[in-house]
Amino acid sequence: MPFHDLLKNRRSIRDFQQKDVPLGIIKEIIKDSCLAPSASNGQPCNFIVIQNREMMKRISDECKKNLLDDFKKSPGAFSERYETILKDETFNIFYNAPSVIYVVGSSDINSIDVDCALAVSYLMFSAANRGLGACWIGFGGNIRDSKIREEIGLPDNYSIITPLIIGYPQSIPAPLERKEPQILKIIS
Amino acid sequence: MPFHDLLKNRRSIRDFQQKDVPLGIIKEIIKDSCLAPSASNGQPCNFIVIQNREMMKRISDECKKNLLDDFKKSPGAFSERYETILKDETFNIFYNAPSVIYVVGSSDINSIDVDCALAVSYLMFSAANRGLGACWIGFGGNIRDSKIREEIGLPDNYSIITPLIIGYPQSIPAPLERKEPQILKIIS
Repeated sequence: MPFHDLLKNRRSIRDFQQKDVPLGIIKEIIKDSCLAPSASNGQPCNFIVIQNREMMKRISDECKKNLLDDFKKSPGAFSERYETILKDETFNIFYNAPSVIYVVGSSDINSIDVDCALAVSYLMFSAANRGLGACWIGFGGNIRDSKIREEIGLPDNYSIITPLIIGYPQSIPAPLERKEPQILKIIS
Repeated sequence: MPFHDLLKNRRSIRDFQQKDVPLGIIKEIIKDSCLAPSASNGQPCNFIVIQNREMMKRISDECKKNLLDDFKKSPGAFSERYETILKDETFNIFYNAPSVIYVVGSSDINSIDVDCALAVSYLMFSAANRGLGACWIGFGGNIRDSKIREEIGLPDNYSIITPLIIGYPQSIPAPLERKEPQILKIIS
């Protein structure tokens, strides 16, 4: 797809067909994301692929529990809308997507957040370019149970930048409104 | 350009023609970057455009000075290669690019680093799609002089995520080698 069309048409997708994404395609998308630039070409991004719905449900429950604990400890620090969603027992943070790619990396690397965010942007574009939908799921970073962290192969000193859900879109939402670009100053 | 070609052909560019980039094009690229997704659709990225070579030189000198101070305070924390480059008086951290876009945002926003990194990825693709070259300049985040921060319009509580240099490429480097994708685990 021409880049300009991809740019205009990419959406954050949270409504998926119940059709699996072949692992080979997930691997191609991950390979594309490895072309993202990184600080000093460190290429520090690591990936965990989850296509098992039971594991996704366990992770979703774990993250919801931890986030609701956080809400209790710091009421007012989060939006009430989120609290309502998280209390809904039928809500799965992965929106029943067939695939999740966790993007993770060593917490010892100063640039890990931005390096991985650049790679996630590549994952999103590569997915959209193949007719797939994706969404950054911020809630999914809240895995604290050491057993689950071990089961998904997350090393102790690693941070989760985000999980990205991927699947074939069931519906594609209208574009969200955008503010005018916030240019603070032009020095010419 | 088809996205797949853009993906393969985008490079980090540090060698530019001495041809200015019209401000209108810089503004279009910034507008494209505002289509990047952001946490809770917060759209927190702000931009500062610098096309004045004297200001770029002052910022380059300021960042080099601060980084060399850091090297002195924590010898061994940085690569020696960088120290050598920074001690070179002829070295300009912006590689004599005709334009710099600073991507900045409020430090009060938890997701500011990743939100802005996603936007930078859009800036890079949008620039490459127009035949322009760009590069994330990590050194450029080290502006500590309050006078310069004020002159470029950077609010007190704002962080610099990065400056991105933009110009017409003089030469395009060969692709850097990439590691195989680091997939820690596949749970199917």
